[in-house]
Amino acid sequence: MQILKFSQPDFDEKFSILANRGEMDMSEVMPKVASIIAEIRKSGDKALCEQIARFDNWEPKSGSQLKISTDEMKQAWDKTDEKLKEALKIAYERIKAYHEKQIEKSWLSYEKDGAVLGQKITPVDRAGLYIPGGKAAYPSSLLMNAVPAIVAGVGDISVCTPAVSGEVNALLLAAMHMLGIKNAYKVGGASAVAAMAYGTDTISKVDVITGPGNIYVATAKKMVFGDVNIDMIAGPSEIGVIADSSCNAHNIAVDLLSQAEHDEIASSFLITFDEELAKEIEAEMMSVLATLKREKIARASVENKAAIIIAMDKAHAIVLANELAVEHLEIATNDAWEYLPHIKHAGAVFLGHFTPEAVGDYLAGPNHTLPTGGTARFFSPLGVNNFIKRSSVIAMNEKTLRELAPACMALASAEGLGAHELSIKVRQ
Amino acid sequence: MQILKFSQPDFDEKFSILANRGEMDMSEVMPKVASIIAEIRKSGDKALCEQIARFDNWEPKSGSQLKISTDEMKQAWDKTDEKLKEALKIAYERIKAYHEKQIEKSWLSYEKDGAVLGQKITPVDRAGLYIPGGKAAYPSSLLMNAVPAIVAGVGDISVCTPAVSGEVNALLLAAMHMLGIKNAYKVGGASAVAAMAYGTDTISKVDVITGPGNIYVATAKKMVFGDVNIDMIAGPSEIGVIADSSCNAHNIAVDLLSQAEHDEIASSFLITFDEELAKEIEAEMMSVLATLKREKIARASVENKAAIIIAMDKAHAIVLANELAVEHLEIATNDAWEYLPHIKHAGAVFLGHFTPEAVGDYLAGPNHTLPTGGTARFFSPLGVNNFIKRSSVIAMNEKTLRELAPACMALASAEGLGAHELSIKVRQ
Repeated sequence: MQILKFSQPDFDEKFSILANRGEMDMSEVMPKVASIIAEIRKSGDKALCEQIARFDNWEPKSGSQLKISTDEMKQAWDKTDEKLKEALKIAYERIKAYHEKQIEKSWLSYEKDGAVLGQKITPVDRAGLYIPGGKAAYPSSLLMNAVPAIVAGVGDISVCTPAVSGEVNALLLAAMHMLGIKNAYKVGGASAVAAMAYGTDTISKVDVITGPGNIYVATAKKMVFGDVNIDMIAGPSEIGVIADSSCNAHNIAVDLLSQAEHDEIASSFLITFDEELAKEIEAEMMSVLATLKREKIARASVENKAAIIIAMDKAHAIVLANELAVEHLEIATNDAWEYLPHIKHAGAVFLGHFTPEAVGDYLAGPNHTLPTGGTARFFSPLGVNNFIKRSSVIAMNEKTLRELAPACMALASAEGLGAHELSIKVRQ
Repeated sequence: MQILKFSQPDFDEKFSILANRGEMDMSEVMPKVASIIAEIRKSGDKALCEQIARFDNWEPKSGSQLKISTDEMKQAWDKTDEKLKEALKIAYERIKAYHEKQIEKSWLSYEKDGAVLGQKITPVDRAGLYIPGGKAAYPSSLLMNAVPAIVAGVGDISVCTPAVSGEVNALLLAAMHMLGIKNAYKVGGASAVAAMAYGTDTISKVDVITGPGNIYVATAKKMVFGDVNIDMIAGPSEIGVIADSSCNAHNIAVDLLSQAEHDEIASSFLITFDEELAKEIEAEMMSVLATLKREKIARASVENKAAIIIAMDKAHAIVLANELAVEHLEIATNDAWEYLPHIKHAGAVFLGHFTPEAVGDYLAGPNHTLPTGGTARFFSPLGVNNFIKRSSVIAMNEKTLRELAPACMALASAEGLGAHELSIKVRQ
């Protein structure tokens, strides 16, 4: 694990490598993804079935075999352990309650001059949710993508998830039942993104595609962007923790590892201005690491991607956290709320000693789909906002238009747009 | 001009070509844009100067020659005709007042169980605005891009605009002065997008790039998306007008032409259920066309891109307008407000007989940067929203975490994420 101290001569250089960790090199996979997209656009379901046979170890014969029936979902729900059903319901209710607070209202402003101006909010007609599958099937990802779409009022929601050997994770199916998903398909990767972006006989063309995925999914989302909207382009998961001597070193070590266990290329950053604490947390990490079921993944992540950063003081720690702009930022100090006004760039901020990042992954309420790799500088958590769009509303009356005419005509004339000018003039 | 009547046998087929007008083929320009971006990333200002020499008919010697001084802006303002200064000020005030209504507030929710959940809104640190130049320099585009960034609270705003033969349009310079722009550069096209996305010695790397442009600019924006955020990928401008017998045919003809005069590939659509009116408006268009300064451009647009669509009735007109999902939608009827609840997809809606689209282009208040080509199904007008991002806020206390622990641990365990589970357990 890399340890960087503010006073070392190459600190800025090494820290800037961490801060610029985000760039994804899509050049290698892009030609492959381009040909997957081209095949789907040309041959629809037929291409989908062929691609699944190539990548997912089963051979659907036709588009209809890709559809997951609502019966399958119900059966999976019925077979689900009661404790898990209850957990899913709690998560659903809390995520729903949070996202309902994000609903943006349409508004109209009746101006003094008689004009009416406004902004109308409308849900998109159709949303497509991509949920990764295979070994790591995450029902929580389905909840986090579906609930904001449901809350936004999207009428038609499609879900695509890969079915390795034709099988879909039972808990994912159960979650589909709980959420009332009607249209779900056993399709993964770039194929799924292409099918939802352009439509096939089986899968409807959608307006917005959201959801996490590997480099193929990320590249496909970037390539279809503009023909549909997408939520963001997400890379490997990451955590940053600002901790001081008030924290429990063991707990923070576990939190850092909870990110490392996701992926060999996940990143965990500890920022502290207490060098003793840094050593203690490092030792705790190494000792807990050996006890994890996913030790191998977590160890690779810790060895290659983790960093302990010793800041000069609290103010410096905040500067560094903002420069890292991490996906998850825990502030494990007694005065965590004091930090919040100064945190500019982070996907989600977890305050205090009783807010481990995992609670946000499942059921705190806010979305767990968050900007990674420093993109919290400009991307936002997935939310209701991703499933709506705005239309401006303008209504002038004869008097208002007359008052504005001289200025409007002057500008149109200066830009050389005669018909624009004329369209005001003819109404005088 | 194409005329389509609902009752003709090939109506659906022909209409669907109009509805699917939006797709942009970037494949031809993509390699050129990729190499422009690669050059800028490799050689910064040097590459910028070379590219300008190649495309813009002047030869800057170094990065410093690209910068537009605030003196130049002030001189341009001082020389500007008083009437135009006044027009710019009116536009600025109205656009600002509208966008201030879009400001989203950060919020915190103090939950009954003691948890605190919230959403923090922060402006991006740096925004880059691209303003087309050359023959058609539009100061209005600068206002429409800069004002939402200013209202959002962006601290560092850069403007790039091409300077053909080294000259920038005087009114654009004057508008820069009025807006207090400090960092503006004589750089255009894909070069400008690349420079703002990745930074050079002269031009700072930004977080968000907005602004209109040709296919090179659109392609560059798509290619840098993910490394920065962008507003949208916009194509040629377009208008749709729903009109009935209560409208003034001459005025509507002028409105349709005000879109046609923008660009040979701009589109104008009239939707009406009154066939007599359709003929009248068509005749008016042909007669006004001949009087326009930009007749040649407008005529090409009318001949190749315009369409008159005869709907069955009012309800059918609304269905067709939603399928077209146009950038600008005028509703030129006495009962225009009756339509509004049913309009799902449009960039901006202009209601009634005294709201020509041109008033929205300049100074009604709402933004004139709007989704084109049917992307109003999922993209929104440019606004304050494009210059901010959200961070989720989560604070649990010991009691809340204990209550949520069983559900949270059950889900983490079901997903096989041991350290996630442990991070909750160690806090019990």
